[in-house]
Amino acid sequence: MFIRFVTTGGTIDKIYFDAMSQFEVGDSQVKHILTEGLANIDYDIVSMFRKDSLDMTDDDRQKLKEYIESDDAERYVGTHGTDTMVATAEVLARIPNKTIVLTGALSPARFKTTDAVFNVGMAVAAVQTVKPGVYLAISGQVFEAGKVRKNREENCFEKIS
Amino acid sequence: MFIRFVTTGGTIDKIYFDAMSQFEVGDSQVKHILTEGLANIDYDIVSMFRKDSLDMTDDDRQKLKEYIESDDAERYVGTHGTDTMVATAEVLARIPNKTIVLTGALSPARFKTTDAVFNVGMAVAAVQTVKPGVYLAISGQVFEAGKVRKNREENCFEKIS
Amino acid sequence: MFIRFVTTGGTIDKIYFDAMSQFEVGDSQVKHILTEGLANIDYDIVSMFRKDSLDMTDDDRQKLKEYIESDDAERYVGTHGTDTMVATAEVLARIPNKTIVLTGALSPARFKTTDAVFNVGMAVAAVQTVKPGVYLAISGQVFEAGKVRKNREENCFEKIS
Amino acid sequence: MFIRFVTTGGTIDKIYFDAMSQFEVGDSQVKHILTEGLANIDYDIVSMFRKDSLDMTDDDRQKLKEYIESDDAERYVGTHGTDTMVATAEVLARIPNKTIVLTGALSPARFKTTDAVFNVGMAVAAVQTVKPGVYLAISGQVFEAGKVRKNREENCFEKIS
Repeated sequence: MFIRFVTTGGTIDKIYFDAMSQFEVGDSQVKHILTEGLANIDYDIVSMFRKDSLDMTDDDRQKLKEYIESDDAERYVGTHGTDTMVATAEVLARIPNKTIVLTGALSPARFKTTDAVFNVGMAVAAVQTVKPGVYLAISGQVFEAGKVRKNREENCFEKIS
Repeated sequence: MFIRFVTTGGTIDKIYFDAMSQFEVGDSQVKHILTEGLANIDYDIVSMFRKDSLDMTDDDRQKLKEYIESDDAERYVGTHGTDTMVATAEVLARIPNKTIVLTGALSPARFKTTDAVFNVGMAVAAVQTVKPGVYLAISGQVFEAGKVRKNREENCFEKIS
Repeated sequence: MFIRFVTTGGTIDKIYFDAMSQFEVGDSQVKHILTEGLANIDYDIVSMFRKDSLDMTDDDRQKLKEYIESDDAERYVGTHGTDTMVATAEVLARIPNKTIVLTGALSPARFKTTDAVFNVGMAVAAVQTVKPGVYLAISGQVFEAGKVRKNREENCFEKIS
Repeated sequence: MFIRFVTTGGTIDKIYFDAMSQFEVGDSQVKHILTEGLANIDYDIVSMFRKDSLDMTDDDRQKLKEYIESDDAERYVGTHGTDTMVATAEVLARIPNKTIVLTGALSPARFKTTDAVFNVGMAVAAVQTVKPGVYLAISGQVFEAGKVRKNREENCFEKIS
């Protein structure tokens, strides 16, 4: 079973640059997380964007969709900023016969305390166990695209009916 | 969706006691991992044993099986030592109509570098997405009970056919 | 031996706010660092500012100087942003008969990889061992005020002769 | 200013071997700690023993003393198990004209929560600021050899008068 990871940026990969007293999207933390998680799986990592998800455009989402559609893998884990993860999932949901799980983090993977490792663990399990479709793995849950929203006040994701 | 965590000990919960220059099974790290993972789920944690899995007896496995059989939840995540996780899964596999995912760690959750967080994340996702049965979530994979072994030389779990 | 910690902000205490995709100075990490360091010392912590050091004004430095001058402790550890730590040290150097050690971090204490813990450890040792005066404890060294500069290219502190 | 680190084992370097469900003294963590602490200093690391300090013999202490006496550096930081650090310091105290600071940890450096980084930070600052002699840097304090004991009940070091 092969998993292709596609990284697009977001909080999960944020790094802090002291020189400018600001942080930006840094290198993807996926490989580091899989290594620490002792994941004995067949995978590769494709870096597509390095963006805050608020900066992801409709064009970016289209590019991501076209990339996955024309690519030959069956299972994808996408890392993505949390603010527009729901919107991207809805665009990807039109792709048939592929299993795509989006995840990300509310706190950067480089922090001592972060949800990134737990979330990537969830995504890796979900992409192996769910039937083809598009899902979000975050907030301790596996959501289907179109049935989830980010609750900004509570800073978590929740099911919508 | 409610998840009941049942802890039995193992490396995942190992703690080091300097006074005796040895380590033992400490408090379960599951609550800490779920909190850090920002898991917004309905759950509780039952502490059943605090044993190295090499010290788990057939009686212990029977007790665990009877507890889950007679208990009212539908979904369980069990934390367990890696050395006999496979054997325990096979005993639990006789329980009908419940979803049980065992996980653990090769490196203690209290270490800086540990597979515990990733593995619990995998188990939480798996217990929500698989059909009733008994599974292992470890080494980056979700295995069915009876179709997995621990490869001691490689220090990982692998599918058997 | 009593040590008074005075916190002024800086990278050491930076926290990330996902909601606004930015970070700000958060609660001081000094108490957390001393607890983890198993420091068995008599101390308290006074929070004076929560500023990036580029935002520290001459007025702020004057206030800090007056606070320490009129205060009754003999030994101080000040946490401070790295960009103007050298300037603040020079203002404080006019205070007689007190031992003051400034420290901070180039990477936030909340990061997995940070120089904050090491630096606070250095400051705590230095404030107990040096004679009265003002010092910087950072970059693995203990510098006297007036004989140190931040090398921005190398992102470290170095002695000037 | 050059610092020679001499490692002898102890809790600071403990690692856990899952295969045997036990832990042993692993590679020294000093280089890792100095790198993370962004220590911009001239140093090297000599590995002398890999022992629990309860296993250090009088012969071992004599070897360590002879090594430092005949070696050409002026400043040493020694990492050492906490149980007999006090005894080793008293043997080394007979060496004239060298500055030697012993440190270690009550919790392994490889743990998420450890006093190792703080303690090595203290030792690095102390070895630069104290006059020649032998010291312990631990429990948030810098102690002179011969004036300190380990309080086993409280699991900390304290001054004796």
